[in-house]
Amino acid sequence: MSPPPSSLEALAPDALIGRAISGDRRALARLISIVEDQRPAASHLLADLYRRGGAAWSIGVTGAPGAGKSTLVDRLIRRIRNDGEQVAVLAIDPSSPFSGGAVLGDRVRMQDHITDPGVYIRSLATRGHLGGLSRATPQASVVLEGVGFREIVIETVGVGQAEVAVAAQTDTTLVVVNPGWGDSVQAAKAGLLEVGDIFVVNKADRDGVEQTVTDLKQMLQLGSPQPWWPPIVTTIATEGEGVERLWDAIVEHRSHLGEGDRREVARRHRTAALLRATVEEEVRAVIGANVAGEAWEAALDEVMSRTTDPWAVARRLTADITQR
Amino acid sequence: MSPPPSSLEALAPDALIGRAISGDRRALARLISIVEDQRPAASHLLADLYRRGGAAWSIGVTGAPGAGKSTLVDRLIRRIRNDGEQVAVLAIDPSSPFSGGAVLGDRVRMQDHITDPGVYIRSLATRGHLGGLSRATPQASVVLEGVGFREIVIETVGVGQAEVAVAAQTDTTLVVVNPGWGDSVQAAKAGLLEVGDIFVVNKADRDGVEQTVTDLKQMLQLGSPQPWWPPIVTTIATEGEGVERLWDAIVEHRSHLGEGDRREVARRHRTAALLRATVEEEVRAVIGANVAGEAWEAALDEVMSRTTDPWAVARRLTADITQR
Repeated sequence: MSPPPSSLEALAPDALIGRAISGDRRALARLISIVEDQRPAASHLLADLYRRGGAAWSIGVTGAPGAGKSTLVDRLIRRIRNDGEQVAVLAIDPSSPFSGGAVLGDRVRMQDHITDPGVYIRSLATRGHLGGLSRATPQASVVLEGVGFREIVIETVGVGQAEVAVAAQTDTTLVVVNPGWGDSVQAAKAGLLEVGDIFVVNKADRDGVEQTVTDLKQMLQLGSPQPWWPPIVTTIATEGEGVERLWDAIVEHRSHLGEGDRREVARRHRTAALLRATVEEEVRAVIGANVAGEAWEAALDEVMSRTTDPWAVARRLTADITQR
Repeated sequence: MSPPPSSLEALAPDALIGRAISGDRRALARLISIVEDQRPAASHLLADLYRRGGAAWSIGVTGAPGAGKSTLVDRLIRRIRNDGEQVAVLAIDPSSPFSGGAVLGDRVRMQDHITDPGVYIRSLATRGHLGGLSRATPQASVVLEGVGFREIVIETVGVGQAEVAVAAQTDTTLVVVNPGWGDSVQAAKAGLLEVGDIFVVNKADRDGVEQTVTDLKQMLQLGSPQPWWPPIVTTIATEGEGVERLWDAIVEHRSHLGEGDRREVARRHRTAALLRATVEEEVRAVIGANVAGEAWEAALDEVMSRTTDPWAVARRLTADITQR
């Protein structure tokens, strides 16, 4: 039995890790919250959990709103559970005052798994702050790996480059589209074509599925040739149709990654991107402290009166930040 | 007569400013290219041109691909020319290997003005680099102001927050939508609802125009109350219908900004954002120099072997950058 919430609050963070590893889902939820809220214990916990990780395979799922991502994730969960593996899902909600509700509604479809102890589903709300999303997702992922999950699914709504980038920080990235999917400019803009390891044409019972597959193939051929040629899988997620073929494609991609040191190379590449982004975020905090107060207002006065220009002032401020 | 290109190349940058002010469009084009390509003379030129500016009114035009922005901008150009004012247009092309051509095609519609010496149209290609877009656009705008344009229109495709942010860095921001415009999640995600000073429902001869106006009103009412309540104007840009009403709304917004020190406050706010973004960009260059080479690869090795975690390394690198 899990202890009541009050005693969880009282637990030392290190004790939470032990409990989460032994399957206590509330301890796990609390670990993720500590990390998500950037509480004081977060960096200590992440250091510990990161060292325990490295064995998980992650699947990213992205695509436009309404493409059927959640239903597809639901099917993937069932498929993974059939193999007896535990699975964790991070569902990224790009919440804003306008969209929050609608996207959260999709999560409800996954509620079927709420009573299955082998499935852990967590929504990460971004509260409109994209930087927060790209920070919190890899950290939550490290928590899940650290407590022992071998299968991690990360679902994001592919409406912008930041969201797509998050989904692409996984071993295998699925891009979900629908028949009649004509808005290729938008897709290209969001970077969807570049990040997909596997393309899924979901709702394949609708008209235009062959045309969409053909279009996709053509668009993919515009890209530079790569050792992995992204397969295009058609599915009807609501019926479970095509899910087995999709799973085969995922397994094939994993085996491709497993050849030579491809997986390590890919992970090193992602880790470098993560490191760099984290440094930028930390430096941004230092900048934040420098672009406030009297000196900042005085610099702004100078620019507004046009006695100097914004770029000259920016160079001065940058020197202050990087050379003090 | 303009000198041939070869002699323009030979001209000192300062001489280009004089020529551009006297109406030499090729000198102006060259100034913008120097700034866009970040050539050595760029900061010196910007310092000079920034001091000369401050008198222009700018209009931002953003919205989804296909909303009719270019046609609307074409109509605005004609309207401004009717008043005898010169007008400069910056058309931001979010070019990518997949979308570049399509978006550039829209530009062709503005070619009618190519023989009008009172109109200057310039495309800024972003080449997929959003940071470049947010740097080059205000700088090109400073060039246009500095050489004497009083009316500047900046058109961007509102597919992401960066593009929308660029359009919002203007005195009056128009958000262009179409009837049946249902993808409110996407619009909210891109921040379109927050930045619009005026909403334009273009292609108003299509079904669903009243519903779209009603939806827009409701969505706008979800926002926090503000001194300026964004009007919603219906247009059929291809027919010129509604353009006069749109122009009235722009003039009204300008007069609203003119009350008290609203315009100064708004511009100070934008200048602060620009300064901050520029500092961040400069610091990013310093980071770039620090996240390469042997020390960086060694740090990455440590993280990959899980003897340390990415966040600990990021903190160390940040300290190196900000305290050396």
